[in-house]
Amino acid sequence: MQSSSYFHGGNYREVASRYGLSPNEILDFSANINPWANSLGIEKIVRANLKEIYHYPDPQCTQLIKQIGQYLAVDRGNILAGNGSTELIYLAARALLPRRALIFAPTFFEYERAIKACGGEPKFLFLKENQGFSINIQKIIDATENVEAVFICNPNNPTGTFFPKDELLELVRTTEERKISLILDESYLDFKHPGQSLVREAQETRHLLVLRSFTKFFALAGLRLGYGVGGRRLIEKMAHFKEPWTVNCLAQAVGVYLLRNEQKIEKIREAVNKETEFLFGQLSRIGGLKPYPPQANFILVRIETDLSSSKLQEDLAQKKGILIRDCSNFAGLNDKFFRVAVRKREENLRLIDSLREAI
Amino acid sequence: MQSSSYFHGGNYREVASRYGLSPNEILDFSANINPWANSLGIEKIVRANLKEIYHYPDPQCTQLIKQIGQYLAVDRGNILAGNGSTELIYLAARALLPRRALIFAPTFFEYERAIKACGGEPKFLFLKENQGFSINIQKIIDATENVEAVFICNPNNPTGTFFPKDELLELVRTTEERKISLILDESYLDFKHPGQSLVREAQETRHLLVLRSFTKFFALAGLRLGYGVGGRRLIEKMAHFKEPWTVNCLAQAVGVYLLRNEQKIEKIREAVNKETEFLFGQLSRIGGLKPYPPQANFILVRIETDLSSSKLQEDLAQKKGILIRDCSNFAGLNDKFFRVAVRKREENLRLIDSLREAI
Repeated sequence: MQSSSYFHGGNYREVASRYGLSPNEILDFSANINPWANSLGIEKIVRANLKEIYHYPDPQCTQLIKQIGQYLAVDRGNILAGNGSTELIYLAARALLPRRALIFAPTFFEYERAIKACGGEPKFLFLKENQGFSINIQKIIDATENVEAVFICNPNNPTGTFFPKDELLELVRTTEERKISLILDESYLDFKHPGQSLVREAQETRHLLVLRSFTKFFALAGLRLGYGVGGRRLIEKMAHFKEPWTVNCLAQAVGVYLLRNEQKIEKIREAVNKETEFLFGQLSRIGGLKPYPPQANFILVRIETDLSSSKLQEDLAQKKGILIRDCSNFAGLNDKFFRVAVRKREENLRLIDSLREAI
Repeated sequence: MQSSSYFHGGNYREVASRYGLSPNEILDFSANINPWANSLGIEKIVRANLKEIYHYPDPQCTQLIKQIGQYLAVDRGNILAGNGSTELIYLAARALLPRRALIFAPTFFEYERAIKACGGEPKFLFLKENQGFSINIQKIIDATENVEAVFICNPNNPTGTFFPKDELLELVRTTEERKISLILDESYLDFKHPGQSLVREAQETRHLLVLRSFTKFFALAGLRLGYGVGGRRLIEKMAHFKEPWTVNCLAQAVGVYLLRNEQKIEKIREAVNKETEFLFGQLSRIGGLKPYPPQANFILVRIETDLSSSKLQEDLAQKKGILIRDCSNFAGLNDKFFRVAVRKREENLRLIDSLREAI
């Protein structure tokens, strides 16, 4: 394969070309990107920084890391910026080289790929459908017995499985004690649980790395920006493996700008959450569909009819230009599951109508 | 260290803050970036693609690779795009894991860093000052005896050492026969020797990887774009290790646009080369300086007085706001060497005047 793209949503260009549509005609519910973020003035900042294109980006991301530090009340030496949080996932794998690493099934595919690319082996902890994909923190602690690293996405993509801070701190106590690396991906935390972050705690640890992303909440998917927060030694170790200019100049400028806008962030958070509740309510009312309660800006849905998720994806794309995420390729799921991101009201209504028709 | 930035030019922001200047006040000769590229209409293309920021970039870089293929007359399956050619350097090291790799001294620092990051050991082939930093291709062939990979920058940064195509093909015959990976970095080839590329030959090989960059000729340093061309199996092997979204959406759009402009490329090439000759001539006339004949858009200069390159760099930055590349940290050079990129006439004259004053 050219890359791991097959395993992700957001491939609307490919889908458009398959059905003879223009990419602009596709209504993309497959990537968990926040449609309210375009009101944040991002494009203005890109325009104002166009001349930066002709200079190397600051490899230290000095201004950006200063701003992140202020925003989180975290020391700069505990922060490393990257080309999306994905770069940090791979850097962690490269720096830590875990022989065995615990990951959920289902979860974001890149943890497994990064572990394998570095010669390690994933140990899957299956989230069970009949338990609503929830899991007791003690079960995770028990499963760390023979691993060197644990990857947790909180809330988890695509199940929405969520752990409050105090439960995770129990896990952190264990991983610190046993010297197990814990990579805690908070890419989706900002939507509903901004107060539950472990970034400040991460500073005082040796084995915890918290990942944060600008891709989802801030919708910077195309520009690429994320960062990691951890103990100083761990951050230095990862920096040792980091390629120098992976964070482009525009991503750095926009990142600095966005974190200065706390008021706007709060407003957008309210808007997304309100619409998430609406979409969840609407989905619940469609016979034959069982949506799982959302913890971020996406909803996992089970099809309770004969229809498969791949057939549903195909139908919606071909007939309606609507792209949902067929979840049949997630380890631990099957062809009865799909995921939708929350978009704005009118688009969500189009989704609901189309789903009602298709089911 | 946070990254390997210390070993490079282009750190004008850091220098500006050291001397209490605004970054805009620094005239940067330290990064080899083509100042004519801003006439290519790059900013217009970025503006036209601003909405792409909110979507994941195409991880396959489909349109870009199609365009590169057409531009080079190379099959798409032989091309892999990256976050600057630097990503390809690291990917090659990760995919090939050479225990020992031959590299020039002096040369671009990232080859050494990538080799070491992947557990390998560099074997330095010193380019000698008393031979004008030139070297016979047979000497390189002889030095491949006990290595698993060879990194060559052609023309070489910072010495300008250049090998014509037919000489390199001799080396390729040897490396193919002995199954030694040859990473040939053509980042600077387009300035004076566009006809000497080995991209087409690379398709038919198993062990040759040719690297190309948009950073220098097209000045896209801040946006990050480069690519590699090689045999299909090697490209697939590298793709296996590649992180999915490293090439941002704007870089992809601009890359497609730039390669459609062959006529403009030719005009710019003429302009840079003309100015390079002018700057070389002027530097030659300053007593106490010995410039080496340029093969790209930069000139290596030896100081033949008591002055050190670090002192000269400091003086020029502090008193004139001019940043040159102190080359004392290049393996194989010392504190008598600096490098300057070729800029436009007026700026080059400012450099010449300031150098005359300082020496």
